[in-house]
This record gives sequence, structure tokens and C-alpha cells, in this order.
Amino acid sequence: MRKFVAHRAKRLISNATVSLNPHHHHHQSSLSSSNHYYYYYSSILPRFFTSDTSMASNNSTPPLTVDSLNPKVLKCEYAVRGEIVSLAQKLQQDLQANPGSHPFEEIIYCNIGNPQSLGQQPITFFREVLALCDHPNIIDRSETQGLFSADSIDRAWQILDQIPGRATGAYSHSQGIKGLRDTIAAGIEARDGFPADPNDIFLTDGASPAVHMMMQLLIRSENDGIFCPIPQYPLYSASIALHGGTLVPYYLDEATGWGLEISELKKQLEAARQKGITVRALVVINPGNPTGQVLAEENQRDIVEFCKKEGLVLLADEVYQENIYVPEKQFHSFKKVARSMGYGDKDIPLVSFQSVSKGYYGECGKRGGYMEVTGFSPEVREQIYKVASVNLCSNISGQILASLVMSPPKVGDESYESYSAEKDGILLSLARRAKTLEAALNSLEGVTCNKAEGAMYLFPRIVLPNKAIKEAESLKKAPDAYYAARLLNATGIVVVPGSGFGQVPGTWHFRCTILPQEEKIPAIVSQLTEFHKKFMDEFRD
Amino acid sequence: MRKFVAHRAKRLISNATVSLNPHHHHHQSSLSSSNHYYYYYSSILPRFFTSDTSMASNNSTPPLTVDSLNPKVLKCEYAVRGEIVSLAQKLQQDLQANPGSHPFEEIIYCNIGNPQSLGQQPITFFREVLALCDHPNIIDRSETQGLFSADSIDRAWQILDQIPGRATGAYSHSQGIKGLRDTIAAGIEARDGFPADPNDIFLTDGASPAVHMMMQLLIRSENDGIFCPIPQYPLYSASIALHGGTLVPYYLDEATGWGLEISELKKQLEAARQKGITVRALVVINPGNPTGQVLAEENQRDIVEFCKKEGLVLLADEVYQENIYVPEKQFHSFKKVARSMGYGDKDIPLVSFQSVSKGYYGECGKRGGYMEVTGFSPEVREQIYKVASVNLCSNISGQILASLVMSPPKVGDESYESYSAEKDGILLSLARRAKTLEAALNSLEGVTCNKAEGAMYLFPRIVLPNKAIKEAESLKKAPDAYYAARLLNATGIVVVPGSGFGQVPGTWHFRCTILPQEEKIPAIVSQLTEFHKKFMDEFRD
Repeated sequence: MRKFVAHRAKRLISNATVSLNPHHHHHQSSLSSSNHYYYYYSSILPRFFTSDTSMASNNSTPPLTVDSLNPKVLKCEYAVRGEIVSLAQKLQQDLQANPGSHPFEEIIYCNIGNPQSLGQQPITFFREVLALCDHPNIIDRSETQGLFSADSIDRAWQILDQIPGRATGAYSHSQGIKGLRDTIAAGIEARDGFPADPNDIFLTDGASPAVHMMMQLLIRSENDGIFCPIPQYPLYSASIALHGGTLVPYYLDEATGWGLEISELKKQLEAARQKGITVRALVVINPGNPTGQVLAEENQRDIVEFCKKEGLVLLADEVYQENIYVPEKQFHSFKKVARSMGYGDKDIPLVSFQSVSKGYYGECGKRGGYMEVTGFSPEVREQIYKVASVNLCSNISGQILASLVMSPPKVGDESYESYSAEKDGILLSLARRAKTLEAALNSLEGVTCNKAEGAMYLFPRIVLPNKAIKEAESLKKAPDAYYAARLLNATGIVVVPGSGFGQVPGTWHFRCTILPQEEKIPAIVSQLTEFHKKFMDEFRD
Repeated sequence: MRKFVAHRAKRLISNATVSLNPHHHHHQSSLSSSNHYYYYYSSILPRFFTSDTSMASNNSTPPLTVDSLNPKVLKCEYAVRGEIVSLAQKLQQDLQANPGSHPFEEIIYCNIGNPQSLGQQPITFFREVLALCDHPNIIDRSETQGLFSADSIDRAWQILDQIPGRATGAYSHSQGIKGLRDTIAAGIEARDGFPADPNDIFLTDGASPAVHMMMQLLIRSENDGIFCPIPQYPLYSASIALHGGTLVPYYLDEATGWGLEISELKKQLEAARQKGITVRALVVINPGNPTGQVLAEENQRDIVEFCKKEGLVLLADEVYQENIYVPEKQFHSFKKVARSMGYGDKDIPLVSFQSVSKGYYGECGKRGGYMEVTGFSPEVREQIYKVASVNLCSNISGQILASLVMSPPKVGDESYESYSAEKDGILLSLARRAKTLEAALNSLEGVTCNKAEGAMYLFPRIVLPNKAIKEAESLKKAPDAYYAARLLNATGIVVVPGSGFGQVPGTWHFRCTILPQEEKIPAIVSQLTEFHKKFMDEFRD
């Protein structure tokens, strides 16, 4: 039933003729079954191209230019890895090639919440389990007992047993391995005191792809709006731009510690609707990024009520749920708040994003995370599943890690003590670092900085002298971008200009992580202080 | 400089008023600085919501419906995880709950190239290195010497030294860790005999996100077309639909072993252009998915020439580059072919996709892969980098694995022998399985099946009796979907209907992987044969 040999010969020749004489194309395709035509050229075929590289230049269509790319891509901006980081990388290369070429010894990356890049150590138990799941062949070897904690071995067995065929190298269900979702659902239930359904969990490669998925689902055109806090984490503005929607801003109130006022939501929703924008969803980041505030439960209730009343999907970015540094504040998930108000499974479309990149674990490179999706109809859920399935599944190590952060060692487990010590060490140190940096910033001329109640950032406001603003404008830079570049050039400290996050027009800020190792904080404070003093002296009005 | 307490009190009250009396909203926001207004309500605030759950039902906007979702999402289809897989999962649950409830004992997933889900073992060396990188604390412990090969320990050290701060849990450069890209570039160079630049490598979570990224970049509207083979791997149709472009088909010629004819490209390009479509890129899948053919080098030259002449970006899906089963065929990357034709770095915009999911490694769950991007202007490259940076980076385990598959153990390394034995064992077995299944399919009435020269699939054509076609139509199913569902219900074997990949209208196919373990193949063949015979008897015209 196959005629390979003859057909293959025919194909080779056919292709050759195409290249020999392009004008024959159309004619030729209608003749494709008359073999004599092709055999005519066969003798010259074999090395046709190899010997004739002059073919490489011809009358081709001009190459792809940036103007012909998708304008949504061109419009998208992502400040956290933008211009300032390119400058930092350049300076780092300088330093490597020419030590001493700049007035600092190293680049301190305070631009991004990337704890392990600044020396934070991973939680030992989590890594033990990951290693055993990566290489299950060693799990029952006697040497393994000496290298790994007993509960990490138990946990690895448990996880392997949850994976069909113990195949950690297989694609999983598109929402993630069912057993891991069971564990995560149990973790959510323990956290909230309300039931969670493993079928509502979609495991993802970090939180970012989950956010993209929801934007892709909700945005039909530039007439669809997504409500975002300003300042916001630029993933949101980037994702909305990439999907062709409109960011509808609501401003957080810096004077009240980045308070989220319902009156502001109401006002901005009205304004957007008057412009013909259909606002589809409300993004809340709690604890706040870049702003570090932790919402009060009463405030969250108002937000839930507002979303319910206005028919908005509530997109709750809760990736900093473990990062709370003040005793008077606690994390409450929006799902818990909604349930405690009496809203059930079907009353409020709500998505909660969680990630293994933040918290005390800080496992950014593992790209693990999940979204818990509740309050959508089965038909809508099916569409979310379909989009998830196009990418097959998220990485299994990230899936395992997501299950671990939602179900860490418990009292009585062999690792509990070391786990607790590692966790507390990281979180208490972060709280101290936040406090020190906040105080240092508040002591600077023209700088005010709200408390980092949570998350990993400070977002100080700088009142810049007019002369500095004019200097920046003459260089076609935003004034805060100018300040950040000057800071970097003087000290090696990388911060992100507030203009990358959005801010009240005419105000200037920068975002600085609280992540540099604690022993480096005093030096950072003195470098920052010295730089700022000189900068202000240089430009004082 | 902060006034937290007073402001926070104000905020709480302000929020409460909003809920108390919605009609005050506008009025109120203009009054937001006159505190007396808010304090008026303060006494009733604290337990306002907790006690009144009747708020849960009110005059809200109707819930999100499927009709109000992004129509591009609704349009997208992904057959590989579509309806047939849902049926399979249902049957599997039946079997678990009620063993013996179906005429088979297990579901055999031949729908997807997921080798480890069917029992293929990972390459030991790769997993050793991954485990050590996941838990570097054990790398210099004496027990580790007994558990891990010496070269896996060396390799893990090498890799850790390439990662800034040895932080395998940190976000990397958005293109991936530089040292790993160096290794991959060296591997490409060794494969092709032409230089490769680590700055051209973008590491991604498997090949799928890389494909999406390119589609996102190139597609501006439904007037932009992407040339795809038919039959095609449905990632392409799905991604084009999600990004709102048009799939411009070119048909592979089944009669010539799924030959790719330039005359067909020419004809379809002409037709698309006449419809006002700007064709921006040509997708070639080599070795073919679902079709299994391996392109001849001459054919590849013609394709390169065609892209050059017509100004098309060449998107080369080369994820099956290690999966070749016939001695007369060899894999040649499109980059090598273009370079050997004399086209340099700037002459042809070319993207090569590679993945850790396929080959002999089959590490689907690790979500590793890369694209090598050449021939784009720096401005366009910058846009690709920007899109990559919005997702921060791909997972580090996947990045490490991508470096390993492009640089496996070499002669003389401790692991070389076991590595070679594992690799050859897998590839030779796959070749035998392909041959057996192909012969079995060709022996069936009305079935013809081209050779699987490469990749992991067979794509037989079935000439279905008219009565079967009518039966399918009466059930509103595509005839091949009906056949696949009947096959699944009778045997537990999951194949994907050809309609999910595209086929010449009026022809019917299915895609079946060659991945079930070798000892299961005879049973699969006899079940398939028996089913097919009965099916034909039932519907014979």
C-alpha cells in the first residue's frame, strides 16, 4: 500500500525543479502526477545548492522590522526587568572586567523579589523532598538514611505514590497532579477554616502564567477594562497590554498607609464606564506590591461586596500571604472573607493566586504556584481548563513545592524544629530589615516611607528638587528613573523607579526590596544616605 | 511623617459608609477630607458585616457567562487533551470504582507523547545531576559518593558554579542561566558544525511557551497568517487561535510519505495573499508530528529558499531531533541547512524549538526547552526579550535538563556506558515498536499507514464504510472521532482523531503514539485488530 521509493524520488526531483525555474511553479503543480516531466532534471540534482551559495542574496521581501510586530507587544512594559536592570548588568560586567572601575564593589539587586539571589537559603526539608522525587532510585538506599531526614523520605514516598506510575517526568493532568491538589486544598482549608476543592486548583509555573491565563480569558478588546491598584506590580499592566485590554486604575491612598478606599473604586468605575469601558475584574494585591500594606478584614469585606454588586471577577494576588511583619496585622484570604460573609461557592467569581517564589521559601527559580478558582460556571471553568491544557501542565518540581509550602512539616515531625528555625529566622530577619530600611528612608530629606507591613518592598516617596526634575527632563527621563540611575551609578544599589508601577501624577517614588542579607543593611543604609545627601545638595533649589 | 492611626480609623469608617448607603458614594468622595462626615457612622461599625449575611444576595450584575469570554479562547481547540481524553478519564474512574466494568483492564494512553507515563524510565545521569542541584547541601557528603556517579557530582558542581551564588532557587536571567546557555550553544555547534551564540538561546518551560511567544510577537490581527502543515500538531492551531491570527494550511502529501512540496506552499501562499492575508511565518515540524516523516536535506534547502524569497520567518519545530528510526534518514537542523547554503546570521529569521520532553529523555514533566533565535534585528530581539522577561524566567530544573540533553556524558565519563545503554535501549525499542505497529495497521482492512521515520507517532488513514460515516453523522461526531471513541470503549486504547490535526477533507485518520511499553505491543495489536475487524463487519457497506 506504500510506494515510497518512487514517490520519494519524484519529490526530490520536484523540489529541485522548483528551485531551478520558479516560473514553472503553477504549471508544474498541475502536472504533479506526470513523472516524465520530473525525471528530466534528475541528473543535475544532488549537489545543486551546496556548490552555489550565491543564491543567498536575492530579491526577497525585506526583513522583519519592529514596526511590523504585534503592537500589543510593543506597548507592553515591564519595569522590574527594564532599563535600570540593563544598566546594572552593564555595570556588573564592567566590575568583572575591571575591578575598581566603579565606586562600589558589587551590584545589589533590590529591584526584584528574588530572595535566594541575595543569599537567602532554601528550606532544607523542601529541597530534600524535591531531590528524592527527582531521583527516586536512591530513596530506599541505606546511604539515603544518613543524608536525608526521615520525614523527607516519608513525604517523598507519599508524593511518589500520588503520581501515576511514580513518573515525575511525565506530563500531569493539566491542572496538576490530583494528589498534590488534594494536599493544597487541605492546606487552604486549614488556613481559612472553610472547605477547598482540589478541582478548583490549577497548578501553574509561578503566579505569572496564572494571571496571564485569566487576562486572556477575560479581555476581548480594548473596551474591556481590568481594575488595578496604582501603584501596581507591573505584571498586571504588562499582561493587560499583551492581551489588548485597558488598565482601569484605582489609586491607593499613600497618606493612609496605601489605603484602598471604596469611594475611589466607585469613582473610577463610574469614570471608566462613562468612557465605554466594560470593567471585568478587580485586581487586589494583598499584602501589597510595591506598597507593602496589609488590608484590614473590614476593608476586604467592602471589596468583596463591591465586586459582588458590580459584577466584577475578584483577582486576589495573595502571593505574599506568609510575609507579614507587624503583630497588629494578619493575612485573611479573600475566599475566607467572602465565605465568612455568607457568600458560597457560586456567589462570587474569585481567583486567588499563590506562588512558591515568595513567603519564607522564596523559591523563585522553581516556578511553582497555583490559582484557586471559585464561583465560575462549569462552562467557564471548562474554558480555563482548555487554556491550561494547551500548555499541557506546569513543571512537576514546582507542583511538588507548591504542595510542600501549603503543607510544611508539623509538630512532631523530625524536620519540624529545623524547619521552624529556618522559617522564623528568615521572617524575623525580614521584619528587622524592613524596619531598619524604613527608618533610614524616613530620615532622608524629602523622603517619606510607609511601613512595610507585609510583602518584600518599601515604596518611599521622594520630593525631588525642581532642578533635579529639570535635569531629568532635559535627559528625557522620568525624574525618579533619573534618581534611580544616579543611585545605581553611585552605589551599585538597584531600585525600580516608581514610574514603572504608576503613581499619582507629579509624585515620585522608587521600589526597594528588603531582601539584601541583614549584615549588608548597614552599609546599604550609609551608601544610600550619603548618595541622597549629595544628590540633594547638588540640586537643591 | 506618617499618620497611621487617625487615617486608618477614617478609612474603616469611610468603607462602612459606602456599604451603608450606596447613594452617598459620589457626594462622599468629594467630601473625603471632611472627617466629621465619617465619624457620624463610627459607633455601628465593628461587627457590621459579620452579623448580617443577608447582604449576600442583592441586585448584582449577572455572573460571568461563557458568551462574555474572549472569543479567541472560545475558538481555540486542543484535541490532544480534548473530548477523547475526558472519556478516557471517565472510563479510568469507572475501572477504579468497578474493576471489570469494561472489556479491558486498563486505559492505554496513546494520545500524547508522554513516554514516562507509560513506564519509560528517565536517564539516570540526568536525574542524578538534577537531584544534586536541587539539594546542593549533600554534594560533598561522603554518603553521596556511594549514591551518585562521580561525573554526575562533577557536572552538578560545574552547573552550580555557573549559577550566580549557586542559587538554584533564584530567578535567572530571563533568557536562562548564561552558563547553561553556553553549554547548549556548544551542543548545537557540535551537532551542526556551525557556530551558535548563547545570546540567541531563550530557555523556556518546554517548547509550547516558546511557540506562544513567537505567535504573540508576529500576529497582529486575523489578517496575519501563519503557514502550518496539515496535518499539524494542534499546539499551532491553538496558539494561532488564541492570538487571533489565521492558520494558512499547506497540505503534506500522504501518497509520498507526507512529502512537503514547494509547489503546494507556493499555491497556498498565493491563495492566502489573494484573500488579503499577510503570511508572516512558516511552521515546519521535522521530524513530523503527527506524521512522523523526516525531511530530506534537499527539501529543507528548498524550504529555506522559499522562506527567504517570500520574507517568511521560519519556525522550525525540531523537538523530535533525536527520534529517528530509519537508517536512511538523518536529522539536519534548519539552521545548519541555512548556514550550509551560505546564509549567515542576518539573512534568515529562523527560530528552532527544542524540548526536554521528547528524544530518548522524554522528560515532559520537567518543562524544559529552548528556542534558538537567529536572523532578527536587535530591535526585534529586544521585544522577544521583553516578552520573556514578563514571565521572569523558565524553571531552573528544566533549564539544567535542557543543558544536559544538549551535553550528555561523553566517552570516558563514568556514566557514559550506562547512559548509552539506556539511550540506545529506548531508541531501538521505539524503532521496533514503530515497525510492529505500522505493520499491524497496514494489515487492517481499509487502513494505510506511512512509516514513522521519526518522532513518536503513527498517523494511519482509515477508509471508513459509508454506514459508519452516516452513523457518526447521526451522532454529530466526526467519523474518525466516532471510530476513536468506539476503539476506546472496546479496548481502552486512546488515540486522537485525525480531525484534531487537520486532514484532506473526506479522508479520516487517527494519531497513535508508539510509546506503550514493548511487552504490551502484541496485546495492543491483537485488541486493535479484533476491534477493527468487528467495526468493519458491523458497518460494511
